[in-house]
Amino acid sequence: MEDKIKDLSEKIIKLLEEVKIQEIKEIIDNLYPTEFTEVTDYLPVEQTIKIFKLIKDDERIAELLSELSSELQASIMEALGKEKASDILEEMDTDDAADFLGDIAPHESRKLLDLMPKEEAEGIKELLKYEENTAGSIMNNEFVSLPEDLTAEEAINKIRELSPEAELIYYIYIVDIREKLIGVISLRDLIMANPKAKISEFMEEDVVSVLDTEDQESVAKKMADYDFLALPVTEKRGILLGIITVDDIIDIMQEEVTEDIHKMVGSSEAYEDKLIKASPLTRAKARLPWLFVCMAGEMISGSVIKFHSDTLQAVMAMAFFIPIIMAMGGNVGAQSSTIAVRGLATGQLRVDELWYNIWTETKVGSLIGIITGIIIALVALVWQDNYVLGLVIGLSLCLTMITAATVGTLLPLIFTKIKIDPAISAGPFITTIVDVGSLLIYFGLGTFLFKILG
Amino acid sequence: MEDKIKDLSEKIIKLLEEVKIQEIKEIIDNLYPTEFTEVTDYLPVEQTIKIFKLIKDDERIAELLSELSSELQASIMEALGKEKASDILEEMDTDDAADFLGDIAPHESRKLLDLMPKEEAEGIKELLKYEENTAGSIMNNEFVSLPEDLTAEEAINKIRELSPEAELIYYIYIVDIREKLIGVISLRDLIMANPKAKISEFMEEDVVSVLDTEDQESVAKKMADYDFLALPVTEKRGILLGIITVDDIIDIMQEEVTEDIHKMVGSSEAYEDKLIKASPLTRAKARLPWLFVCMAGEMISGSVIKFHSDTLQAVMAMAFFIPIIMAMGGNVGAQSSTIAVRGLATGQLRVDELWYNIWTETKVGSLIGIITGIIIALVALVWQDNYVLGLVIGLSLCLTMITAATVGTLLPLIFTKIKIDPAISAGPFITTIVDVGSLLIYFGLGTFLFKILG
Repeated sequence: MEDKIKDLSEKIIKLLEEVKIQEIKEIIDNLYPTEFTEVTDYLPVEQTIKIFKLIKDDERIAELLSELSSELQASIMEALGKEKASDILEEMDTDDAADFLGDIAPHESRKLLDLMPKEEAEGIKELLKYEENTAGSIMNNEFVSLPEDLTAEEAINKIRELSPEAELIYYIYIVDIREKLIGVISLRDLIMANPKAKISEFMEEDVVSVLDTEDQESVAKKMADYDFLALPVTEKRGILLGIITVDDIIDIMQEEVTEDIHKMVGSSEAYEDKLIKASPLTRAKARLPWLFVCMAGEMISGSVIKFHSDTLQAVMAMAFFIPIIMAMGGNVGAQSSTIAVRGLATGQLRVDELWYNIWTETKVGSLIGIITGIIIALVALVWQDNYVLGLVIGLSLCLTMITAATVGTLLPLIFTKIKIDPAISAGPFITTIVDVGSLLIYFGLGTFLFKILG
Repeated sequence: MEDKIKDLSEKIIKLLEEVKIQEIKEIIDNLYPTEFTEVTDYLPVEQTIKIFKLIKDDERIAELLSELSSELQASIMEALGKEKASDILEEMDTDDAADFLGDIAPHESRKLLDLMPKEEAEGIKELLKYEENTAGSIMNNEFVSLPEDLTAEEAINKIRELSPEAELIYYIYIVDIREKLIGVISLRDLIMANPKAKISEFMEEDVVSVLDTEDQESVAKKMADYDFLALPVTEKRGILLGIITVDDIIDIMQEEVTEDIHKMVGSSEAYEDKLIKASPLTRAKARLPWLFVCMAGEMISGSVIKFHSDTLQAVMAMAFFIPIIMAMGGNVGAQSSTIAVRGLATGQLRVDELWYNIWTETKVGSLIGIITGIIIALVALVWQDNYVLGLVIGLSLCLTMITAATVGTLLPLIFTKIKIDPAISAGPFITTIVDVGSLLIYFGLGTFLFKILG
């Protein structure tokens, strides 16, 4: 698809130069929003603005705009002028409109809200109040809710009336007079039902919903577990506030995974998904904190070596195996912690299986340790012709593998227990700890064994 | 929720002991499939089988069974007997039935298929032909397709007739007489339409579909980009074969991410999602190949140190900084490659921006290098009171950071170009390369500078 989009972009640039308005319009009309977004990746901002000025339909503008980056949205809205911008905001889904208004300067967003019809503006202001990453901040209010005393036929007619406003009407929520959520029916069931049947008779009363203050990660997990297309959001007394749709959740799942993966290698969480497009300075800043931790930790590793200088002076070959000990320990530690972190994130690993999991990983580490330990001992024997050194490096590597696998699994589980994001434990943190530990083992054993055997 | 499920499981175990059939039935009736799955996590297999024997409705059994692990499914089906098993398979979605039959022994699955009605069996056999991870292997045939000459009203009536078989009827696909896909309408649009209008007049003709041979990862990307609830699957001439629903895609996205993350730390791809539940031997086997690569690489690192033994003998303090050089290089390399790999997976990073991305990362590496290089030089000066050593370690760390960041970004992009999964490049592979490089820089610079300045 990438090539198709690139060709299309070049064609559009050419048509813009030749001012062939009608042809551009036709191309844009036939694009899905996601395709249009990819096209804009290849266009200078001014060209994208020109295109938006060609589109007359506010709803179509809103649809295309929603998928663009917030910077691009801001440039386009500014170029279109405040009046037009507020018209477009009206046509956007409330969650997208709130996202946009939350990203621009507060006084700008107030001006735009003032230009909008009061009811629409209130709806968006409600969403803006929510903290980031809560269900409230990602919900939209384009849902259909009906009272329970309607018949199926009346309900369908009512939906026909209301629908242009509803983002997703595949579920219809049933509320009582205080707007409390008491049931749900799918559009499918409504159509299949006897037209004269009351909806209260066939609605599902055990509604799975989320709280407005709930974390978006837990919303995503519920959506994935229950296989719903949308989840209703209520406040704590059960009043229906909005819905979160599955397509928004897919985006959030991707963001959360990216955030987790970046954390696992020790990139600060503050930059998240946008890290890849950030300036070098921003990117360096996101990564430095953990590198400092790593530096401090490795100073301890250095001190361990310094402490055993005499051994090293006597057996210089000890130095040749420092890379293997460190790299192998770091890798196994990273493997074990990453597998644990991902297991916790997907729910495949339960914290209450703590000891069982650690014990299994210890066994894995022992297996790996015995195999690699024997190999490296033989290598050392052949390479350096020193059987004590072979014994030292072989034993050390084996013990390092066991330590790395055990600690690598233990840390994410402990972090989870004390309510710190376990992803943090998987990066520089674990490798640094394992480095110090492995060098302690290696030089400790070396000093000891060379003393009694050398 | 976890606690609620645990309590529930204990209650069920107690009720099973007391043979309170009716009460157990009531509890199970009120559970969603995902909740039931979690309950079975706490139950011995025999108890789960007992519960399944209590449920009379084959459709409900099929629904609950679909969410369980394939091992558990097999045990239950065996306990229920072949006749019952084939009845249940009939009620399962074709994709779930095919998944189950693909996992058990071929002669067992043939026996079960023979017991099923011919048409159902044929549908499942079609799916079983597809290679794993293709669109064909994850599609199901519970879709609604209609000819284009119906009116909206006729279409709705037709759907009322067909529906019990359809997993997702929110999209209705329009096909010509040869079953070729020519349009799509949503159930919503159908209900909103004038009952007398022909569906050919308001159907969307530009249908986004996927090929049966397409990789599931690309299907997931399309679903996420276009925000659809289902995608139609066709063979290369455009004949409609099945649909893939968004809930299946969410599961696949999670699997793919887990697979990627495991690959990033060098766990073989063969074990994927199930790694966390595998035996220690299986887990060790999945991780050993890359550890061997790492060992071989670090032998080179060791040789670099050996080659510079004289320098090390003269300035023993050089050894104290090996951990910092190696750990910092490894971490920055892992950061850069992970950010690149994730960027490529989400589509935020394009291969055609190769040189621009590498140049940006080089700048990031330089910034990090200058800052950390100055700090470590000062530390070395104070700690070891040796200004040449300060210069050597400071310069080396700076150069290592630049190399690590650049190579860390370059490798995933090259891997993508030559069609190897870039996730492989992010783990032990990159850290080993960077280790060798950083020690070459460190000891090369050290030997040189101590010769001319020492």
